[in-house]
This record gives sequence, C-alpha cells and structure tokens, in this order.
Amino acid sequence: MINKNMYALGANRSCIRELFEYGRQRAAVVGAENVFDYSLGNPSIPAPAGVNEAIKAVLEEMPSLAIHGYTSAPGDLPLRQAVAEDLNARYDAGVRPGDLFIGCGAAPELVSVIRALAVENSEFIAVAPFFPEYRPFVESSGGKLVVVPADIPNFQIDFAALEAALNANTQAIILNSPNNPAGTVYTAETLGKLAALLEKKSAEFGKTIYIISDEPYRELVYGGVTAPWIPGIYDSTVVCYSWSKSLSLPGERIGYVYVPEKCADHDDLYAAVAGAARAGGHVCAPSLIQKVIARCVQLRPDLQAYDENRRLLSEALRSYGYEMARPDGAFYLFVKAPVGSSKDFSEKAKLEDLLLVPGDDFGCPEYFRICYCVSRDLIERSLPIFEKLVKE
Amino acid sequence: MINKNMYALGANRSCIRELFEYGRQRAAVVGAENVFDYSLGNPSIPAPAGVNEAIKAVLEEMPSLAIHGYTSAPGDLPLRQAVAEDLNARYDAGVRPGDLFIGCGAAPELVSVIRALAVENSEFIAVAPFFPEYRPFVESSGGKLVVVPADIPNFQIDFAALEAALNANTQAIILNSPNNPAGTVYTAETLGKLAALLEKKSAEFGKTIYIISDEPYRELVYGGVTAPWIPGIYDSTVVCYSWSKSLSLPGERIGYVYVPEKCADHDDLYAAVAGAARAGGHVCAPSLIQKVIARCVQLRPDLQAYDENRRLLSEALRSYGYEMARPDGAFYLFVKAPVGSSKDFSEKAKLEDLLLVPGDDFGCPEYFRICYCVSRDLIERSLPIFEKLVKE
Repeated sequence: MINKNMYALGANRSCIRELFEYGRQRAAVVGAENVFDYSLGNPSIPAPAGVNEAIKAVLEEMPSLAIHGYTSAPGDLPLRQAVAEDLNARYDAGVRPGDLFIGCGAAPELVSVIRALAVENSEFIAVAPFFPEYRPFVESSGGKLVVVPADIPNFQIDFAALEAALNANTQAIILNSPNNPAGTVYTAETLGKLAALLEKKSAEFGKTIYIISDEPYRELVYGGVTAPWIPGIYDSTVVCYSWSKSLSLPGERIGYVYVPEKCADHDDLYAAVAGAARAGGHVCAPSLIQKVIARCVQLRPDLQAYDENRRLLSEALRSYGYEMARPDGAFYLFVKAPVGSSKDFSEKAKLEDLLLVPGDDFGCPEYFRICYCVSRDLIERSLPIFEKLVKE
Repeated sequence: MINKNMYALGANRSCIRELFEYGRQRAAVVGAENVFDYSLGNPSIPAPAGVNEAIKAVLEEMPSLAIHGYTSAPGDLPLRQAVAEDLNARYDAGVRPGDLFIGCGAAPELVSVIRALAVENSEFIAVAPFFPEYRPFVESSGGKLVVVPADIPNFQIDFAALEAALNANTQAIILNSPNNPAGTVYTAETLGKLAALLEKKSAEFGKTIYIISDEPYRELVYGGVTAPWIPGIYDSTVVCYSWSKSLSLPGERIGYVYVPEKCADHDDLYAAVAGAARAGGHVCAPSLIQKVIARCVQLRPDLQAYDENRRLLSEALRSYGYEMARPDGAFYLFVKAPVGSSKDFSEKAKLEDLLLVPGDDFGCPEYFRICYCVSRDLIERSLPIFEKLVKE
C-alpha cells in the first residue's frame, strides 16, 4: 500500500513544471528560439566569478577529508560566523552564529520551521499571491494553510482580511518579500502595521504568532527600493534564506534558518527546527559549498541584466495597455489578464508559444506571472505577441 | 507553541554525537592524540583523486548556469544514465534511468521511502542491531518501528523472531548490509530465506511487504566477501544508496533511491517517493556534485587502510579474549562487553579516554561499536587500554 497524499504530490506536477515541460516539448518541434518560455524562475545571470574561484581555492587549500566530510548538523562554524558578521554589518542585527542553522535551501528550511511550529489544529497564513509549495509544506506537516486574499492592485497586505483570518490556532504567517510571483516588496509601513497587529493578536490570544520570512530574493531589488530587515521590525520573525537567487546557485541547495535571539521561545524553537530537520533526514548541508559560501557571503549579485529586462518588458507591456504589480523586486512581473481569467489568457498565449504561468495556484487568478530571467533577445522577439494578444 | 516531538529530537542528541562532543572536550584538555575516539563513522580514507579532478573539469568545461542551476527533481539524466549503466554492468540489474531518484544521501532518501509507504497503522521492521535514526524517521512519518532482536552471535536474521513480528500492518523491513554497527554482511542464503518468508507472508496478507535496503556500505567489504544485490533476490526491494562511504563524500549529501521495475506498484511507489521528497522540501540534489558523480560512478574506494585497521584491531582484540561479530564489511567492529552491559564497559573505557559507543541505541546492549576509520597509530596506542580493560 502506498501513501495516497505522497502519491498525489509526486504524480501531479505543479502547473509551473507542467508548463516548463510543455515548453521543452515545443522546443523540440519548433526550435528552442521560437518558444518564449517565461515559466521558470531559474536565474539567467551566472554566479559571480568569485564563487568558482572559491571552489578552486578550497580544493587547493584544504585536505579532501575536510572538504567532503560531515559538518556539524547546524553547519560549519566559520560559515555561520561569516553570515552573522555580514548580517550584523548590514542590518545591525545582533545575529549570533548559534542562531543560524545552515540548511539545504529555502524549501527544506521552510518545512523544518513549519514542522517545528505544527501543533494540534495549527494554522499557517499565506498572503496571496504566494508560492504554491507552501500548501504541501504546511499540509504534509499536519497544519492548515489559510490564504488571505491579495491586496489588489498594490500587493501589500489587506489588513482587514488578515485580521479576520487570525485566531487562537494561528501559529505563523508566511511572508515572501520580494515576492514570488508578484515582484513586489513590502514597505516598512506595511511591515510596521503587520508587527503592530501581530503583537496585539498575540497578546489577545496569549501566545506568539510568528512571522516566517521566506526571503531568497532579499537582494534582488531595483530602482533604489530596499527590502526591510523584518526581524528588526517584529521580534518573533524566523528567516529562511537561500543563496539560490542572490548568488545564482539554485541547484546547490544552500541557505540558512535564522532564529533571532529576541524571538519568543528562542532556544526551544531553534531546537525544534534542528529536530524537524533531523526527522526529515538532514545530516548537514553540502559541505564543499558550505566552505565556498563562507568565502563568498559578501558577494552581491550583478543585477544589471535583470533590471534591463524588467524595464524593457514592463515599459513595453504598459505601453500596450497591460496593468501590473509594481515590479520592484525578484525577477517577476505579475500582470493582469486584459479580459477574463489568466488561465484563459495563458492558454491563448500558449498557442503563440508564449508561456505565461496563470495566477490560480498563487491564489490570484486575475494575474499571470512572467519570469524575466531570460535573454533580452527573447524578450524583444516576444513583444509583438504581447501586443497582438492585448488587441484581440 | 512548539512541536514537542521536534523539540525532543533537536534537544536530545544521539548518544554517538554526545560521545563525539565529549571527545572534543577531552581533546582540549589532554590533547587530541590522547583521546582514542572510535565514536564516529566519518571516513578516514580521502575521496579518490578522480573526484576533485572531476570538480575541476566540470568548472572548466561547463558554463556556470549549467553547473549551478536547478536540475530536474529526480536528478540530472546523465547521472541517472551513468548509475544505471554501472549497476547493470555489475549486477545485470535491468535498471532504467527513470527508476532512479537522485537524493541528498541515504538519510533523506530513507525518509522519503518510509513516508511513501506510511499508511494508517503501518509498521516498519528493523533488525537489530540497527542504525538508531530509523526510529525518528519512522515515527515522525506516522509509522511504528518494530524491532526484531539480534541474531547473536552470527548477526544474520533470527527468522523465528522475524516471522512473529510480521503482520498485516507490516509495510516494509529495513535492511542495512553491510551493517552499521555490526560490520556484518547478510549472506545470499540469509537473503534467500528472507525473500521466501516475505513472499509467503505477502501472499498470506494479500499485500506486498517491501524491503527497504539501506546500503551506503555496499562496496566496503573485505577478505573476498561480497554484498549480494538484494533486488536480484527479492523483487520488491527499494534501494537507498549514498556515495558518502564508497567515495568518502559524506558531507556532500548525494545518493539515490532505486525503485526496480519489478517492484510491486512500481509507478505509484516511485511517484510517492518523489512526492514525499517534495513534501520534505527536496528541489534537487546538489547540482555540481551531480555532474561530478556522473563522471565518477565507476570509481571504487581504495579499502587498504580500512582493511589493515580491521585486521590489526580484530586480531589484537581476539588475542586479548574479546568476542565480536564477523567484521566482513563497513568500518565497524561490534564487540561483546567482557562482563556486564556495554554501557558500563563504555563508561569504564571513557575513564581511559577510549571512546566506544554502547550498543543500547542499536538494539543490542551486550555489544559496543568501534569505528575503525581512524589512524593506524591511534589503534596501536589504544591496544594496551583494551588489554587492560579485559583483564580487569
């Protein structure tokens, strides 16, 4: 006998993966250059040269057993020290190496934090639009995912809807800013209001409501916008970070959980995160890459290509009459379907080999997502299709 | 509120880790060379030179985006093809690349397979002595771990005890051969009897009882012994493999799940394994190392140093009067405490800075474990302590 829920998760691909696979099939038929694939958030800017230089340096300088051996489960101390120093320099954050748990990217880190907080009848809130994998992460941890509708067209937070969703079973609210799929960034004002509401409700319910801050796009912001440091605004914020996007290392599976000292029940929560990782088979994060990142934490991405794509595409689409969320961060445009549902619009676009992810699975069916981590040439050649579609 | 089970898993270290940490503390006091630390199964033979050469070659030959980008969730096709070819050449195994799911080492792979098979009231059998993490893996997946007592002194399988443990709720039996902690290898005869029993019982209960074969030590065998290929003996065997020990890459977190074509409910089980991995936050195994292993699957470990350690230590200990399990595989000796419990004996040894893991957590309290992946010099200097202890 097979577990039906696990079967369903394995048998039913996400709609993003589905679309991506469709694109590969079409590429085989019409040629890769004729498929305008905006489906997948796979960085198109290479890792900074310093990363591969650091790999070579580690291979030169360290013995094989030290490079490839087990590290401690929470991660190599030099890496945790380097991350703490970097965060403290940037945010005056008061991070101690022992507050950090090096994980295999944001996805398993989120699972560990959710499992650490999953108690009987617990509810986790996602603010639409949200990354669809939050649902299996929460539900397979025994929790209930509660979705707060999107704040259209600003894509900040609809506080009336959020307040209505909070109750004594709420364990945490999952934030993702800069946001996938909206490309929007929560302002300091939004986060301040959120902190005040969570403090009020935590007091009212006699328990802590945590923020789980999923922030792999933290450094991907444009036009002078910055992503506020959320633990500086709300104490009980657990950060799940990854170098997947900031250093263009999505395949390497490396990031960290940060449980701030001021977080409620700090020691117990940190232990529970480590325990949940252990229950999931975490032994340590990949060791060579840990050593490499320890030498690279101060590298920042060169965002020029993303920024150029962002401007080119958003300005062209606006000139054709499309409406969209403010594209301040990540590498996504979230665009309103001109008429009807984004699903219908995406199907029409598919007929032109233009691949756009409908917003349904993100909890926002009026909008579709464009991943602009593609070549400039592809964008330029796709523009006439966007123009044609809006005119139809 | 924090999940109590996850907290307990994080707050209570395994006795192995506890002992290892104690060793580090003692090393700071008496000097590292005076602590005879046999606690941790961390390979002491470096990875074959071909591994680091392959890393450099991948960095030279492939673009950064291809090296560090996401792979598909089941793993890079070239790696799966290379593994299939290697297994087919060695075992005439009929492995197809699509039967393989590249994972982050045996631990998370075991968790995925267990979750895929965890249904209501399901039981998983471990044969003592067994790797203690099986317990949290099974219990946090909602299953029940049933322990079959050790077959002392042969460390094969006590079939009467196993038969008594099997029932209609049994979903799988977890095997680990070559065995941690016993260092023993199941013979073809043992595995043949096991297959016959499981076939009989599967028919009787009208369901398939699977074997989950945890085999990171498959290639670590000595003195002409080989570890039989278990899917060749019992169709419904799911293999969890890791290159941690065979290529001395324990920190890199890379291995595979193999679901054989002949396995009952092959397609559904493979999907459920993939779904369970997804639920645990698996996105892909580390990408650079996937590319590296694809070039290294035919490398085999140079076992000379382990074999020399094994002979030196086992012959000396036998000459002092110790009894032990046949040390045919892995890098462990499993030795009977001369008098009383292995816990008491380990405590006495600790007073001499000789660190031996008592067998209690392995389900075999009469024996203690020695990890002989240490330097020859350390072994030689520790022998007088072993001799002294047995004489007391």
